[in-house]
Amino acid sequence: MGENRWKTAVTKIQPNEIRLRGYRIDELMGRVSFAEAAWLALMGELPTKEVGQLVDAIFVSSIDHGATPPSVMAALTVASGGAALEPCVAGGILAISKSHGGAVEECMRVLTDAVKRWNESAGGPGKESSGGSGGESRGGAGMGAAAVAAEILAEYNKTGKRISGYGHRIHTKDPRKDRLFELAEEAGLKGKHIEMAVAFENELGKEGKSIPLNVDGAIAACLCDLGVPILLANSFFIIARTVGIIAHVYEEKTRYKPMRRIDPVEQEYDGPGDRGL
Amino acid sequence: MGENRWKTAVTKIQPNEIRLRGYRIDELMGRVSFAEAAWLALMGELPTKEVGQLVDAIFVSSIDHGATPPSVMAALTVASGGAALEPCVAGGILAISKSHGGAVEECMRVLTDAVKRWNESAGGPGKESSGGSGGESRGGAGMGAAAVAAEILAEYNKTGKRISGYGHRIHTKDPRKDRLFELAEEAGLKGKHIEMAVAFENELGKEGKSIPLNVDGAIAACLCDLGVPILLANSFFIIARTVGIIAHVYEEKTRYKPMRRIDPVEQEYDGPGDRGL
Amino acid sequence: MGENRWKTAVTKIQPNEIRLRGYRIDELMGRVSFAEAAWLALMGELPTKEVGQLVDAIFVSSIDHGATPPSVMAALTVASGGAALEPCVAGGILAISKSHGGAVEECMRVLTDAVKRWNESAGGPGKESSGGSGGESRGGAGMGAAAVAAEILAEYNKTGKRISGYGHRIHTKDPRKDRLFELAEEAGLKGKHIEMAVAFENELGKEGKSIPLNVDGAIAACLCDLGVPILLANSFFIIARTVGIIAHVYEEKTRYKPMRRIDPVEQEYDGPGDRGL
Amino acid sequence: MGENRWKTAVTKIQPNEIRLRGYRIDELMGRVSFAEAAWLALMGELPTKEVGQLVDAIFVSSIDHGATPPSVMAALTVASGGAALEPCVAGGILAISKSHGGAVEECMRVLTDAVKRWNESAGGPGKESSGGSGGESRGGAGMGAAAVAAEILAEYNKTGKRISGYGHRIHTKDPRKDRLFELAEEAGLKGKHIEMAVAFENELGKEGKSIPLNVDGAIAACLCDLGVPILLANSFFIIARTVGIIAHVYEEKTRYKPMRRIDPVEQEYDGPGDRGL
Repeated sequence: MGENRWKTAVTKIQPNEIRLRGYRIDELMGRVSFAEAAWLALMGELPTKEVGQLVDAIFVSSIDHGATPPSVMAALTVASGGAALEPCVAGGILAISKSHGGAVEECMRVLTDAVKRWNESAGGPGKESSGGSGGESRGGAGMGAAAVAAEILAEYNKTGKRISGYGHRIHTKDPRKDRLFELAEEAGLKGKHIEMAVAFENELGKEGKSIPLNVDGAIAACLCDLGVPILLANSFFIIARTVGIIAHVYEEKTRYKPMRRIDPVEQEYDGPGDRGL
Repeated sequence: MGENRWKTAVTKIQPNEIRLRGYRIDELMGRVSFAEAAWLALMGELPTKEVGQLVDAIFVSSIDHGATPPSVMAALTVASGGAALEPCVAGGILAISKSHGGAVEECMRVLTDAVKRWNESAGGPGKESSGGSGGESRGGAGMGAAAVAAEILAEYNKTGKRISGYGHRIHTKDPRKDRLFELAEEAGLKGKHIEMAVAFENELGKEGKSIPLNVDGAIAACLCDLGVPILLANSFFIIARTVGIIAHVYEEKTRYKPMRRIDPVEQEYDGPGDRGL
Repeated sequence: MGENRWKTAVTKIQPNEIRLRGYRIDELMGRVSFAEAAWLALMGELPTKEVGQLVDAIFVSSIDHGATPPSVMAALTVASGGAALEPCVAGGILAISKSHGGAVEECMRVLTDAVKRWNESAGGPGKESSGGSGGESRGGAGMGAAAVAAEILAEYNKTGKRISGYGHRIHTKDPRKDRLFELAEEAGLKGKHIEMAVAFENELGKEGKSIPLNVDGAIAACLCDLGVPILLANSFFIIARTVGIIAHVYEEKTRYKPMRRIDPVEQEYDGPGDRGL
Repeated sequence: MGENRWKTAVTKIQPNEIRLRGYRIDELMGRVSFAEAAWLALMGELPTKEVGQLVDAIFVSSIDHGATPPSVMAALTVASGGAALEPCVAGGILAISKSHGGAVEECMRVLTDAVKRWNESAGGPGKESSGGSGGESRGGAGMGAAAVAAEILAEYNKTGKRISGYGHRIHTKDPRKDRLFELAEEAGLKGKHIEMAVAFENELGKEGKSIPLNVDGAIAACLCDLGVPILLANSFFIIARTVGIIAHVYEEKTRYKPMRRIDPVEQEYDGPGDRGL
């Protein structure tokens, strides 16, 4: 057993037995959802039913956003050169980075710091939020969420820094955000980070121009309240968007010829008409 | 509206409205599972409840198989060079190809051809299988599944070709396969391709050495019976394994130092002990 | 010394000594060109001065062809998502495939087969071409290059197949092709594959429409005459184009903002004016 | 001409004319080396003969360093999954990052800052180095290179930071470094950054343990003295190492079977024996 021997805590493989974080994968199949199993793989433990459902909704929210984002454009361009499916998907994932999808990570940092400051102002990290109650009513001991948000935004204004997770080039009121927070609330999973994310939105609104929380910011707030480490921030988007990338690559390969000039703007939707569940 | 204007049928984007294959994504959130939404994105229509559950099980079955497959080894190696999460995932996906994950695609071809031959021997594609009944009892009109399988394997033996989707370097009886077929049967989704896959397994057993159907072959049979196009064969594995790749990359980044020599054999599991649901 | 012990014939590493195919790398530095050292790495032996110069010209010919090919478009799109340099380059290389750069490989197959047929018609592979002389004057024993080319094109016409390495969407007379063949001739390296490539071009011209040999076809002919294995066909393009990809990514990162819509057509050159050596 | 119209200064494409930074590419072919053309593409102007030769030597120095670095291991692992050449190369390039190849970039930052500090101590950036003379003899006005190096290393020691570009896991006296500096000196290209790099090495030596400048550090010093922007730091390594990656992938594809367990340590060289030019 050489000096290069190493250990992994993800999956145990034995003949005719595969255990993901301790659970037999064939026992998980048909009993837990993909979202729950993904959470198990990433976080080490099975989620509660409520957490599993919120993670499922985060995945669904991120599956696709049309053919204009860099991830899909890169994947289509690789497909247009004639590559197999996997290199197309890989090319798409490479385009997910600081400026595309990366707002989740950046916003998680901001919210984590803000909630930490909020906790400290209230007399240390021991004083936990009582849940859905507004930051303003937190008692006389410390600042409310609104005050912390205002303080941080004032610091940003001084240095010209912009807060990640707010504003969208197309959506002024992102329907995915409202739905995510609705589901988080229903599940009793709304915590201080979602509260803080809303506080930032309110403060930004006071500056005159509306810069609403976008879906990246909403996911960031949910992931923070779920206790996901920041290093895993982009994971949920990557996993979900892989689906959209594949759907677009499949369309490219079955509908268009190679070496096509893929216009990032001059495109229109011609799929199924509007319909409801 | 230039000559480069093009169309996509995946997602319609309008201000404050995102419609995946016609459905509002915020309406899908919390109401359909990720597996169902992924099926919608890839196949264009929502699956039945039964199909959605089988797809979910396929995803769960493929999430991870430890740190030795090329996809995880490649991702860990990229991580060891110091890259961000996305390039690590992309590197891992690039290793999914003909020899790793690709057996699904190859086996889908074999099963599709075999069932076509079976249908034709029975008097044309119009004669559909009656379901779970064995190929042998199909009546006098044509060959049974067993005869078709034997015929094809005899052809393979002549040319030295091996059938994809059978045999595994570790598992003699892959628990994921049995569970998948069990779920397919319970859901009433077991069709001629699963039947044919089993017929091949039986024939291979007659040759003396047991070369059991592996999970790739089982997934191939399910996808064929679900009507998934062969070009999408590897998609399900790619989407699911992205989770495992990320779990391993996260471990690499939090547990090990860069530029580590990552031994593909000298590794052992040290995660949670055996446990059940 | 385990069962996984393996061997490599590329580079020997010892403390303070690095030997590429047997040569000390510090001895190669300053004494052989990058093109010569690349040939040594890929082919195992140092090239003659003449071969080294032709390889150098092949590299130079392939460095860049503007911002429209998929490799550059993919790299710019990845850059636009905010990735580091390496993922951008990787994304670009993934777009080099069957339909982009891949004509070299396909044309090498065609030329290899054609010259084999030519040799066989002349009484077996032993009868080598006498060099620059036209195929027609090869004596009575066999077919000339022109006849072989005509025969193959007739077969292609029957099946609707197109010959790779001929025709270009922009250039009717690719200046890189003429220069490559000129250099090959000057160096005494023009062999039967270049001769055959020209024979195809002549035959295609007879069909009324001019479908001239393009740079991919010219490189293919040179690589065949240099004895490069087909599996390495795309290597030369990949190595050289990496330079162009990096030049474009550097421009993207220093000149444009992230998340830019990168139009594949609406672009124009604004660099240095026309100039000569 | 839409709002998405954009400009590029790399290459002008017109029918039958390709101009790289203003020069006809067919005129460059056979007249400038690949190293010179690469410099033209990256830096915008043709290099002097001396600069071109030093760049050539930098490329040659970086072509390969055996099969153990992450870039080759990742490429081999992707190859082992069955992928085409391009995805293998891309996988390899993804492993070039902060911890593998990235020392060039980091060391360029250190040397740039150090030389700036040196210049400032000497009375502003106007006072250029007189060339090869030692920093100690720079006159009474400011600090010598040695003093600057000592000052910076003392700061590093306080914070536990390590200087990039020094030390190597295998080579105590990297032959590529000595040769690079020798060539730089012969070409009259040795400037203050090389001088500073050596000063750091001397200071590190004084601390008792020898931590010699490695090839990354030597390349960093050369690139700084050549005026290459830091954002292009890794480019030269990426371009050159693409060759080594391809050589190893070709070996993997022609010599080994897919799905091989590729041991990062248990490997040995079996190529041509030691030989000289």
